[in-house]
Amino acid sequence: MSRAYNFCAGPAALPQAVLEQAQQEMLDYRGLGLSIMEMSHRDNVFVEIAEQAEKDLRDLMGISDDYAVLFLQGGASSQFAMVPMNLLGDGETADYINTGQWSKKAIKEAGRYGNINVAASSEDTNFSTVPLQESWNLSDNPAYVHYCPNETIGGLEYSFVPQVGDTPLVADMSSTILSRPIDVNQYGLIYAGAQKNIGPAGLTLVVIRKDLLGKAANNVPAMLNYQTHADNDSMYNTPPTFAWYLSGLVFSWLKKQGGVGNMGEINQRKAEKLYHFIDHSGLYSNPVEVISRSRMNVPFVLADDRLDKPFLDQAQAAGLLNLKGHRSVGGMRASIYNAVPEAAVDALIDFMAEFEKKNA
Amino acid sequence: MSRAYNFCAGPAALPQAVLEQAQQEMLDYRGLGLSIMEMSHRDNVFVEIAEQAEKDLRDLMGISDDYAVLFLQGGASSQFAMVPMNLLGDGETADYINTGQWSKKAIKEAGRYGNINVAASSEDTNFSTVPLQESWNLSDNPAYVHYCPNETIGGLEYSFVPQVGDTPLVADMSSTILSRPIDVNQYGLIYAGAQKNIGPAGLTLVVIRKDLLGKAANNVPAMLNYQTHADNDSMYNTPPTFAWYLSGLVFSWLKKQGGVGNMGEINQRKAEKLYHFIDHSGLYSNPVEVISRSRMNVPFVLADDRLDKPFLDQAQAAGLLNLKGHRSVGGMRASIYNAVPEAAVDALIDFMAEFEKKNA
Repeated sequence: MSRAYNFCAGPAALPQAVLEQAQQEMLDYRGLGLSIMEMSHRDNVFVEIAEQAEKDLRDLMGISDDYAVLFLQGGASSQFAMVPMNLLGDGETADYINTGQWSKKAIKEAGRYGNINVAASSEDTNFSTVPLQESWNLSDNPAYVHYCPNETIGGLEYSFVPQVGDTPLVADMSSTILSRPIDVNQYGLIYAGAQKNIGPAGLTLVVIRKDLLGKAANNVPAMLNYQTHADNDSMYNTPPTFAWYLSGLVFSWLKKQGGVGNMGEINQRKAEKLYHFIDHSGLYSNPVEVISRSRMNVPFVLADDRLDKPFLDQAQAAGLLNLKGHRSVGGMRASIYNAVPEAAVDALIDFMAEFEKKNA
Repeated sequence: MSRAYNFCAGPAALPQAVLEQAQQEMLDYRGLGLSIMEMSHRDNVFVEIAEQAEKDLRDLMGISDDYAVLFLQGGASSQFAMVPMNLLGDGETADYINTGQWSKKAIKEAGRYGNINVAASSEDTNFSTVPLQESWNLSDNPAYVHYCPNETIGGLEYSFVPQVGDTPLVADMSSTILSRPIDVNQYGLIYAGAQKNIGPAGLTLVVIRKDLLGKAANNVPAMLNYQTHADNDSMYNTPPTFAWYLSGLVFSWLKKQGGVGNMGEINQRKAEKLYHFIDHSGLYSNPVEVISRSRMNVPFVLADDRLDKPFLDQAQAAGLLNLKGHRSVGGMRASIYNAVPEAAVDALIDFMAEFEKKNA
């Protein structure tokens, strides 16, 4: 068994210690004679795992009792519908900020359910900037303001938290959550697909301020109503138990790493050294304005795109996997989530330097 | 490591060989240096796994090209909404048959979206019977007819396939699918939560006749529109990759067991010997009319409910797990899905006989 360095944007690398524990417990969870996957979600053993996972997440993120934590299915793409279906009343308007592919998808889906105002967009800079809040055209009394703090595809990250007063701030944190300290109290609702910094694909986390529950109309499906899941501890129906369990192992691992404060420092260091190398190279470049560069997803292009294929082939042969950029933008992308160790970034930089030298 | 016999109704037992393979491949899938959980769903390696799983399922069930096979999230509870949102047009009526807790949930949810006619119900027999089709009051021109061929909680199973002419027949097959041969061509739409006979919780299978696609209104969420998923090979967004992979291993295992024909014979034998023992015992009884007894879920009660706790405690000590009935009905329930071997049923019968003798 040998483990490569994996820069996949998602489903992404998981901590090796987590996978090892899951592997060890797979056929016989703690001497009970069955797998976690084979027991009822209402079994005390699983309920304890589920509750511990929520408790650890609350600890890690400092989530108060004013918020419900929901373990759902359907990914961020389902949240694109659930947010307006739950928070956008008849005749109300919701404000969205467009900073990339994921914002655009959220905006498009929300348009089915009510009035959407795109209050700012950086599409004119090909999403290489985040519009300053001073330039936003927010509505008079929006139901909420939605933004995506980190655009996984473009490699763009907000350097600030939008200030929207009493309006609920809603954030797609799929590739932001747990990467650094976040002040949850500034948000009305946070959602995140698990497959970046949480666990395997198939689980979606929602952190929602409790006063925002119970606003959905009667024609909203029970499964898309946050209240349903808050009322049932996310067990209205059978949850994805194995993904929930694995996420719990990740939370526990994160606590052992010193929590999101320590993880944020490591992530900052990883990103800085990679951008520093790119900016000082003759072959590689990154198009994003410096202040808005993502700490999680580092896209870069080679000066000569005929080198793309040899770059990817040789990287893979060197045990550096999944560096190809998103199909919609091309180029390269190194995603350096929590489970990607600093040594992986060092190895990537060494490889990139060597490749540049050979192809000078 | 010792594996017990697991009679859980779901999430249910998985084949040991499947868990062993998943365990072995967990940290390093076929020498690639990463887990299945850590690679993109668009990676060729995963796409091949996904396509093979669909191909094996089509082989096992004899699903023709007239049908799309979708690998979704959200469980049967999401299908309770998706079916009417996709198939029930304005002003149309859908017919539902009420034979237990899961039918009732489907009916309740469908009521949000249009006119629902409960064409027959066996609630008056406490769901111990299936209403004969001659007694059904079907609508003149229903959009579809929905039923649940096997009620997991009540242990009730249809002994016939409803004949509804050209009307699409829709079936919640969560605990029926793959348990025996099914003539898919009699159905417009089949759906099933994975956590009984398919794989781990968090995956939902839909088999839909292609002419039923594309009927959803514009205000139906993209994620709840069957067309979205059919157009994108169930990869509109990130699917639950690990659950999909594990289900593929189960399909491959099923083919090695001789397919659903052979599995159906084994399941028939398992059920018959357990019901035969119950019917000839002095302590145990099953309330369901003989012709409508479930081959997958065998509920039974003890003549003296003060024996319930010792029964469950001693069964667990004997390595016979999860025999407690559903919280809504009490008593006992042995779920004997594909992955529960005949030897488990034999061991259960031996234990029940011994327990009866000791408590005569």
